[in-house]
Amino acid sequence: MKLNIVRYALVLVIAMTFTNGALASDNKAEAEIQALLLEYQNALKSSNTPAIVALYATDGVQMPPGAPSAVGKTAIETSYNATFDAIGLDLVFHIDEIDLFNKKSALLRTHSTGTVTLHTDNDKQVPAGFKELFIVKKEKGVWRFSHYSFSEAPAS
Amino acid sequence: MKLNIVRYALVLVIAMTFTNGALASDNKAEAEIQALLLEYQNALKSSNTPAIVALYATDGVQMPPGAPSAVGKTAIETSYNATFDAIGLDLVFHIDEIDLFNKKSALLRTHSTGTVTLHTDNDKQVPAGFKELFIVKKEKGVWRFSHYSFSEAPAS
Repeated sequence: MKLNIVRYALVLVIAMTFTNGALASDNKAEAEIQALLLEYQNALKSSNTPAIVALYATDGVQMPPGAPSAVGKTAIETSYNATFDAIGLDLVFHIDEIDLFNKKSALLRTHSTGTVTLHTDNDKQVPAGFKELFIVKKEKGVWRFSHYSFSEAPAS
Repeated sequence: MKLNIVRYALVLVIAMTFTNGALASDNKAEAEIQALLLEYQNALKSSNTPAIVALYATDGVQMPPGAPSAVGKTAIETSYNATFDAIGLDLVFHIDEIDLFNKKSALLRTHSTGTVTLHTDNDKQVPAGFKELFIVKKEKGVWRFSHYSFSEAPAS
């Protein structure tokens, strides 16, 4: 009986070690994905296309409203340049959901609210809201945007 | 030496068996995901909200332009009913990408073209184009929409 208890305790310790290890790994991934989102928020605010393009994976896909999907860094660069010619975006992103599919890919769902500055209308500022679905993946050990689809939502 | 060759051949056969097994499994999943998309296309064409809601996972998320994310089947039902009150959608979906994250979750990227019927404007028909990012997942052994974000694209 005593031996069985020892065995049980040993199994429990091993199981907890693995579980905690997996949780720590998930928490680390989630923190890194949050950091990626914050980098994006800051680069967006400063209309910094090169900084944004660097956050995408090599074969990244951006899906902006009113245009076809931009596939690959060159197309993504063109897409953001066109956006920043027309508007400025001062948005704060709120995380609704992070779901890890495996160690190298995850889903990030957010919504954002803030101000859009209309460069084509004397830099008039209007309240704006969006919602976003990102797929992120690890490329060379770093989380990057793999896919990004978004659309407008009520501003409030 | 002869034994080494036999060993090598054996390892090769085992490796090929596993590889083919994995490929067959991936092909089956891709075919099932394509079938799910076709069901959606047909249900959309007939403005059939119940049939569409059935294609979503229990905690599914729909992200339609101009509205907040619809989370869960009740919100998704309300969202599609509002859509079909205003418009009819006769679209053909084209698959751009299927990427399996694991045996139970995958990404499906598509674009669609067709006709929108404006119920609020004497059922006037206009050409339309969209692009779509779906996350699909297996629920009780069947592929269902987990997340669905989309936006307009040029109609041509």
